[in-house]
Amino acid sequence: MSNTVHQMGIVKRQIVRADAAAVEKLSQFGVATVHEAQGRVGLMKPYMRPIYPDAYACGTAVTVLLHPGDNWMLHVVAEQIQPGDIVVAAITANNCDGFFGDLLATSFMARGAKALVIDAGVRDVRELTSMGFPVWSKGISAKGTIKATIGSVNIPVVCAGVNIEPGDAVVADDDGVVVVPAAWAQKVADAAEAREANEGEKRAKLAAGEFGLDMYKMRESLEKAGLRYVD
Amino acid sequence: MSNTVHQMGIVKRQIVRADAAAVEKLSQFGVATVHEAQGRVGLMKPYMRPIYPDAYACGTAVTVLLHPGDNWMLHVVAEQIQPGDIVVAAITANNCDGFFGDLLATSFMARGAKALVIDAGVRDVRELTSMGFPVWSKGISAKGTIKATIGSVNIPVVCAGVNIEPGDAVVADDDGVVVVPAAWAQKVADAAEAREANEGEKRAKLAAGEFGLDMYKMRESLEKAGLRYVD
Amino acid sequence: MSNTVHQMGIVKRQIVRADAAAVEKLSQFGVATVHEAQGRVGLMKPYMRPIYPDAYACGTAVTVLLHPGDNWMLHVVAEQIQPGDIVVAAITANNCDGFFGDLLATSFMARGAKALVIDAGVRDVRELTSMGFPVWSKGISAKGTIKATIGSVNIPVVCAGVNIEPGDAVVADDDGVVVVPAAWAQKVADAAEAREANEGEKRAKLAAGEFGLDMYKMRESLEKAGLRYVD
Amino acid sequence: MSNTVHQMGIVKRQIVRADAAAVEKLSQFGVATVHEAQGRVGLMKPYMRPIYPDAYACGTAVTVLLHPGDNWMLHVVAEQIQPGDIVVAAITANNCDGFFGDLLATSFMARGAKALVIDAGVRDVRELTSMGFPVWSKGISAKGTIKATIGSVNIPVVCAGVNIEPGDAVVADDDGVVVVPAAWAQKVADAAEAREANEGEKRAKLAAGEFGLDMYKMRESLEKAGLRYVD
Amino acid sequence: MSNTVHQMGIVKRQIVRADAAAVEKLSQFGVATVHEAQGRVGLMKPYMRPIYPDAYACGTAVTVLLHPGDNWMLHVVAEQIQPGDIVVAAITANNCDGFFGDLLATSFMARGAKALVIDAGVRDVRELTSMGFPVWSKGISAKGTIKATIGSVNIPVVCAGVNIEPGDAVVADDDGVVVVPAAWAQKVADAAEAREANEGEKRAKLAAGEFGLDMYKMRESLEKAGLRYVD
Amino acid sequence: MSNTVHQMGIVKRQIVRADAAAVEKLSQFGVATVHEAQGRVGLMKPYMRPIYPDAYACGTAVTVLLHPGDNWMLHVVAEQIQPGDIVVAAITANNCDGFFGDLLATSFMARGAKALVIDAGVRDVRELTSMGFPVWSKGISAKGTIKATIGSVNIPVVCAGVNIEPGDAVVADDDGVVVVPAAWAQKVADAAEAREANEGEKRAKLAAGEFGLDMYKMRESLEKAGLRYVD
Repeated sequence: MSNTVHQMGIVKRQIVRADAAAVEKLSQFGVATVHEAQGRVGLMKPYMRPIYPDAYACGTAVTVLLHPGDNWMLHVVAEQIQPGDIVVAAITANNCDGFFGDLLATSFMARGAKALVIDAGVRDVRELTSMGFPVWSKGISAKGTIKATIGSVNIPVVCAGVNIEPGDAVVADDDGVVVVPAAWAQKVADAAEAREANEGEKRAKLAAGEFGLDMYKMRESLEKAGLRYVD
Repeated sequence: MSNTVHQMGIVKRQIVRADAAAVEKLSQFGVATVHEAQGRVGLMKPYMRPIYPDAYACGTAVTVLLHPGDNWMLHVVAEQIQPGDIVVAAITANNCDGFFGDLLATSFMARGAKALVIDAGVRDVRELTSMGFPVWSKGISAKGTIKATIGSVNIPVVCAGVNIEPGDAVVADDDGVVVVPAAWAQKVADAAEAREANEGEKRAKLAAGEFGLDMYKMRESLEKAGLRYVD
Repeated sequence: MSNTVHQMGIVKRQIVRADAAAVEKLSQFGVATVHEAQGRVGLMKPYMRPIYPDAYACGTAVTVLLHPGDNWMLHVVAEQIQPGDIVVAAITANNCDGFFGDLLATSFMARGAKALVIDAGVRDVRELTSMGFPVWSKGISAKGTIKATIGSVNIPVVCAGVNIEPGDAVVADDDGVVVVPAAWAQKVADAAEAREANEGEKRAKLAAGEFGLDMYKMRESLEKAGLRYVD
Repeated sequence: MSNTVHQMGIVKRQIVRADAAAVEKLSQFGVATVHEAQGRVGLMKPYMRPIYPDAYACGTAVTVLLHPGDNWMLHVVAEQIQPGDIVVAAITANNCDGFFGDLLATSFMARGAKALVIDAGVRDVRELTSMGFPVWSKGISAKGTIKATIGSVNIPVVCAGVNIEPGDAVVADDDGVVVVPAAWAQKVADAAEAREANEGEKRAKLAAGEFGLDMYKMRESLEKAGLRYVD
Repeated sequence: MSNTVHQMGIVKRQIVRADAAAVEKLSQFGVATVHEAQGRVGLMKPYMRPIYPDAYACGTAVTVLLHPGDNWMLHVVAEQIQPGDIVVAAITANNCDGFFGDLLATSFMARGAKALVIDAGVRDVRELTSMGFPVWSKGISAKGTIKATIGSVNIPVVCAGVNIEPGDAVVADDDGVVVVPAAWAQKVADAAEAREANEGEKRAKLAAGEFGLDMYKMRESLEKAGLRYVD
Repeated sequence: MSNTVHQMGIVKRQIVRADAAAVEKLSQFGVATVHEAQGRVGLMKPYMRPIYPDAYACGTAVTVLLHPGDNWMLHVVAEQIQPGDIVVAAITANNCDGFFGDLLATSFMARGAKALVIDAGVRDVRELTSMGFPVWSKGISAKGTIKATIGSVNIPVVCAGVNIEPGDAVVADDDGVVVVPAAWAQKVADAAEAREANEGEKRAKLAAGEFGLDMYKMRESLEKAGLRYVD
């Protein structure tokens, strides 16, 4: 049976998190590297931006589905956080109110959360920055939210254009947010490692003045494609 | 195992379509009614707009995942269309080029497709309109696309913010596009029918001048909520 | 005392509507003419668009302040509508859900409302179009709303960037929506009339091939401003 | 010498228009066809939309460079219009005010203009529609403009992302606006004709049920690219 | 009489500023706190952003209404600034040109202004940052403005969606900009103080690991709303 | 002959760069000053933003025209860079993928490039920031690009709304990006110098409390324009 639409009012307590060692290994890499290593899938829409520069987070997703203008379920999800988790919050409609501020951040940090990724707005940006709690969001707004309608916790959600299941790995930095399915975490981490090693070598060559044209042996294919040099 | 990220290069030929009778019944209702009947889930982002007014479509989804600026897989998906299907096209990145025009529409119509829902751009709007082939898209652009990179057909995709599996029912009209999971089609159609009947009665009362305040018995709860009338 | 921020939970029953004869006279003119006649003030943001082409409305405002995702107060405002009114709905935050559909439209029409102007979304566009009930909105969405939080009726609100008081005149057409303060309605209508008469004469001259350059005697000032003709 | 930035205060009276026969031939084709025939260059940004459906125009450009909120030069350009011209208006900054309405349209039509393409806003949409004067614009706004600052007429301008020189051919329809350099008009028209003929044949095959996969012989290249069919 | 539309060409010299002690007290709090304390009204649209991180300002409004692309009135308003004021600039149309730069900032600072809040663009961001003069704006652009059309100073204006009267208190930080009516300043400051005290206690509990679910006693209402825990 | 549309597949090796001394002089000034000195032309759209605060670059343009989602030509342009150049990348359609990251930046820096200006997206923002290689872009995205379609190098391109020819001077800072035609570089640099000197004097007067109203002798013209002071 297809279960692609959201079930409301459910909190799933037992979820299978991506392997801890794999996530630990993933945490050595940036979003661009992980995204490439995974075959260029799982990247959230580029409107998801960190609230302060140089933010980085890597962890396992606990998911929450919210209603517009209502952050009630963020209190519910807090109890499901385990150390190393990243809360990934999806919303049933476009909304940029400030769902999350320093009080909830205090609670999330006390639970061991590494970050919040939310397809909506946040507030208390100054405080969150000094607390060092990173958030990737769609926007910033001081507009608070109510606590009236229930959503769900730890169900599959679509966040910023990406389908994510509870327990999946999440990597976020200045370049955006990428989701790695739990079952792929190890092989993606390995591929990222291979890629990175490879990049170090390339970087040295390029820094020494070698052209990508030669390093990647592109001259012939460019010529075949019809590229002409003129003076 | 989690399979939330896309597998590239796969065409699934056998899919389980939502029950034909259920879809037929769904086709009596508009998007707003179906969305309510389903519990307010499954609605695509409101940027998805029909290319001409008064368009309507209801059918079963064949899905396709495209790369930005590349419509190669639309030719592949054409072969998988069965009468009554709606092609639902997702893209791996934001892109509004014109992926689809009157030639592909001719092919889709010859296969019995009822519509295209595409999280990108279309072109040949004038021709599509006179052909009566409805398209819901993110935009309109004469910019053509290349045929260089393979995607997939009939895998689960995220289209305009909604996760959809091949075979799911899709309803689209001037209000937007809603996805009904295949397994829910019958009960959602039934709920829509009940709701609609109910609405006819309400409509008559309201047309006769009765207030929603009385018909829905809201006066007491409004007063409790603190509403005050002043002169 | 300043009363510029909104008071919540108030329904003002007695409002002073713009003079009926003045509003009747205003109804002969389009938005661009009225906006010019009024000295280029009072125009709502251009994102306010009619849900169907060639829509036109002119009437007196009953105002309502809504919360995002909550249309409860639209039922409250229905009771305050008098024939010739236009409901002007402001929202306390950005939101494009479908606050209004054919049932509420039936109720509004039964009360004699001429239109809805709403700084949010609507749905049932197909039905509203066949009912001939014009709506100017920020967007279209099948996403319904809840009835949980009270707002206010007939207080001054900011709608799409314009401050409007209950009783003010409102003119809306394909070019947008303009607000005319109740006390100005007569003089703005007179100015619009004068302008229009004036425009008829100009139109005839221009149609006959006369240049605006000559008709408006611009050649000298253009030359003074430094305009040079070259071959 | 490079002359890529705009010279202000110049009206060039003598321009070389694209060959009339070539433009006449171009007028048989839509924007998508012309854009393809030209090698996929010269297309304006897709935010340029016609003010009414099914609008079409093909002609030679007279260009004008305006300042934000100032339409003075539209009166100047009117005098430079020759029958068959399309006025192409660029603006030195982002601005969506209503630069153009029914009076100017009357003047332009009297001069034989076929259309206006403006990287800003227009007004009097209802009147322009009944006059049958097509406009492609960035938006619609009743906000009028002043006449205070001079720009230029018939200089090269960048309009909606495309560089255009006076005399170039312009084709516009529901799919957007494309610019054809004057010197290319004939060969682009020929290429469009060839393409269109070709399309008729393809259309017939597709309508008869042939797949694009076979017609374009894509199966082998798809297989090489790694496409796999699964059940 | 309604005076909701703008009068042009007026400079009001005498305005009643919010009580100095109340504003001083307000300056201890952030925007989110003040917005909550005031009952969630008066918040400008979230597109208003500070030009550098960690900016903060609290003061009394002197208002100015500008025309698009014209900053003449910013020189007029400079003379009306008193120490502790914040200039709040509204525009009669959408426009993001750079209305304000380091010269005007020098003048404003010399007059004792604390900040500029402008529903348009600014420039000289690097210089403004090193001067420590905070600006909240809709955008950044090097495009200068002309000095041709008069607006008004110290009239009520709508800025970024909020109606503001001269003398009202304004608080701005990384979360946005909130307007507090002059007459409410003291009670809002008191409410903010109470709220903040309250928040300190909550923060301590949450930091110690207590759940919001328990602290706010939400478990019962969540259960009533239908929330179910599953494993 | 008009050559306004792009020729594909050409790499022009010999270009005439703006005079080195003139560019050196230009590098003393910010974008706003240069833009004013040049007569308010040549400014790119304000969506072009630096990837980190306080970035500054001034140099000569080598241009490249890319296809959406394809960065092949960035490797080709690398070979054409000379010390002091700024790479200016235009795209044939809207696209915000990450065309450029730390490897290409390493190559560009090794060649002596001062910056990249790209009408698309970049990635590796953290690395680019620590390398101190400034980029002005339309957005940030970890989404990589392919290498499949050839574009051109050192042809005239339209980048973010501005026509630019290879060899033109480019100045970029926190306020945006401005293009100075090569032939104008010296006179624009001189005008900027004059302007700046002038500004120093004004700044001192304004800091001392003099009003712009007096310094610019605006009082009389404001009065003539109808400005009234009221109490």
